[in-house]
Amino acid sequence: MKFRKNAIVGQSGGPTAAINATLAGVIAGAGENPRIQTLYGMRHGIEGLLDGRVVNLSEMFTGEDKLSLLKQTPAAALGSCRKRLPDPKAPDGQAIYEKIFDFFVRYDIGSFFYIGGNDSMDTVAKLSAYAKEHDLEETSFIGVPKTIDNDLSGTDHTPGFGSAAKYIATVMLEILRDTAVYTLPSVTIVEIMGRDAGWLTAASALPRLTSGVAPDLVYLPEVPFSADTFLSDVKEALGHHSNVVVAVSEGIRFSDGRYVGEGSQSGVTDAFGHRYLAGTGKVLEMEVREHLGCKVRSVELNLPQRAAAHLLSATDVEESFGVGKAAVDFAPTASGSLICYERKDDPYEITYCPKNVAGIANRIKTVPKEFIAPHGNNVTDACLAYLAPLIAGEVPLVFESGLPKHFVL
Amino acid sequence: MKFRKNAIVGQSGGPTAAINATLAGVIAGAGENPRIQTLYGMRHGIEGLLDGRVVNLSEMFTGEDKLSLLKQTPAAALGSCRKRLPDPKAPDGQAIYEKIFDFFVRYDIGSFFYIGGNDSMDTVAKLSAYAKEHDLEETSFIGVPKTIDNDLSGTDHTPGFGSAAKYIATVMLEILRDTAVYTLPSVTIVEIMGRDAGWLTAASALPRLTSGVAPDLVYLPEVPFSADTFLSDVKEALGHHSNVVVAVSEGIRFSDGRYVGEGSQSGVTDAFGHRYLAGTGKVLEMEVREHLGCKVRSVELNLPQRAAAHLLSATDVEESFGVGKAAVDFAPTASGSLICYERKDDPYEITYCPKNVAGIANRIKTVPKEFIAPHGNNVTDACLAYLAPLIAGEVPLVFESGLPKHFVL
Repeated sequence: MKFRKNAIVGQSGGPTAAINATLAGVIAGAGENPRIQTLYGMRHGIEGLLDGRVVNLSEMFTGEDKLSLLKQTPAAALGSCRKRLPDPKAPDGQAIYEKIFDFFVRYDIGSFFYIGGNDSMDTVAKLSAYAKEHDLEETSFIGVPKTIDNDLSGTDHTPGFGSAAKYIATVMLEILRDTAVYTLPSVTIVEIMGRDAGWLTAASALPRLTSGVAPDLVYLPEVPFSADTFLSDVKEALGHHSNVVVAVSEGIRFSDGRYVGEGSQSGVTDAFGHRYLAGTGKVLEMEVREHLGCKVRSVELNLPQRAAAHLLSATDVEESFGVGKAAVDFAPTASGSLICYERKDDPYEITYCPKNVAGIANRIKTVPKEFIAPHGNNVTDACLAYLAPLIAGEVPLVFESGLPKHFVL
Repeated sequence: MKFRKNAIVGQSGGPTAAINATLAGVIAGAGENPRIQTLYGMRHGIEGLLDGRVVNLSEMFTGEDKLSLLKQTPAAALGSCRKRLPDPKAPDGQAIYEKIFDFFVRYDIGSFFYIGGNDSMDTVAKLSAYAKEHDLEETSFIGVPKTIDNDLSGTDHTPGFGSAAKYIATVMLEILRDTAVYTLPSVTIVEIMGRDAGWLTAASALPRLTSGVAPDLVYLPEVPFSADTFLSDVKEALGHHSNVVVAVSEGIRFSDGRYVGEGSQSGVTDAFGHRYLAGTGKVLEMEVREHLGCKVRSVELNLPQRAAAHLLSATDVEESFGVGKAAVDFAPTASGSLICYERKDDPYEITYCPKNVAGIANRIKTVPKEFIAPHGNNVTDACLAYLAPLIAGEVPLVFESGLPKHFVL
């Protein structure tokens, strides 16, 4: 089979601090690869491709400087989208796919790289299935993972997770220092991202490994939440020391499936029908105030969790860049794949491995039982051992007038 | 007048990322000063002194390593308190002052250094007035400023403000990158600390100087807030571009003096039947959702603003350390003083200067008119020129297993 000579890359889904490192990896990989003549970039993912909004990345990135600036830039330099492709058999479905594949002919696209999370992998799976069905196999479709949530199956962890985890663990450590300064009993509830999986919340316990302090209680969405147990957990912790800190995932639910933060939401849903979640920490704050009566506050870590490129994990950035380069190498032989991380420990090492994206898209990888403490209110040492290498190392950043310098398209 | 041979230092009020740099300055200054034999530290400020909970800092800090670790540690390493001394003439007042001055005799204390904000300077003013009145002048009382809010009068700016401003400006820049990735119109409201003064919120506009992006609208507590003007401001901004970002101080008030975030309830109840109590940013979020109907979210930067020692301003840390050292030098001649920053520009330079603490304590320095744009919804270039030098430079941090290393007492 002969692939066409150009390639295109897009970013999709929620931004992360490392998704541009992966883009840099694809750019570097394509630049070194004699098979690829020109690398294009879609503006705002598949949405921009459908509108013909593309840029010539090969022309744009000629030196090392821009590429290294791109690696320290948060969010998605090409722009992102949340567009989900329709089924080809749906009304208007066929027309959309024809438009996309016409674009591939026009731009001579032999490799299509899509950097994204679960929803974006659905796009790769659909395009690759459509191509197979219609014998349009001059283009290879490669998914490159990205999500701070670490909830993609098939890969040891996801690009972007390590940097988010490092930021969360660092800020948790700083909050632990902050709350410890007063003698007055207090409860601080820290709400952490993670709708369906508790990986980021688990990462907030990492200070335990080195600093000797850690959140007293850690509640993940994997464990049904009970208000009574929560209150008695907090009460018991206050018996041990004055300044109790609780880490809680935005996505915790009661055993009947209702989100704890549900009532405080307007019921707005995104393009995929997800409920927007917020307010879980606030709900627990009010619960503590009402039943325990001590000083209590809640802190929602919010957007900086996915955007804080000022504190990157060097391991994450290196791997995120590496998986972008690997995607280019795998393109000729692995259409319809997601490039996954395979892990060895002692010493920690990651290799890249293509897996069939159809088996991975739309499945959630949650925190396994052996990573959750018996009472369901903390994480185990095995969990921290899994997490620790992912936040290792720092990236020396370029600053300008006191602020981190970013690459802007 | 002959001062006694030992000294004591305490920290008080809300933590900052640089208050320990000032403690390090006092420790270094005392170590070099032949006048001072032993430097003690109060645990939890004046509260700990009253309980006799003190530590020997001269013994504890013998090498450079601990001192440089202390400089990168957030919160208050000695612990803090919010205790306000009573008037000596109040019931029990006299007894408390006698206890404190007995302590000074017992520990042979010639210099008393108190690092804190407005409330803490009240303590320095009261102790120094009491000493004068009772001819107890063998101890010098020196206030050393500290507050992220920058609202102390008498000093060009406050130690700790520059690091908080740098964190806020950086996170604002990252949020601007994050919100720019989608084509869908959206409004993002960022709530920033500052109950009475808008300095920290003003700092969020700093990206305008270098990156070409900035919050579209900036609302400070210095300007009475109008919901109608706010909505028309946002609507106009949405006419210019898709992703509108608003910076708002937690302390904004309506013209009748009510806080915008005060007692506001969203009308929904949470999973436990609590009425949902919203913060300032949340209130504005709901206002935009109701009246403009576009995608909207609010982000409260919260505790990390004062605790984020992982992103320190080198200028702030250097000055915070310097003012601690200067306090030691001024002690013999300036009892009853607060050590202030005096500023020269072109090139920017800070010198330390003692001022009578009685004229400074309990007064709030707000953002002046010439720093606020004519429509009251942004800051001027003069404001940014004032702020820019304060966030300059980065501090290379010591990390351990992926997390910043802190000094722990």
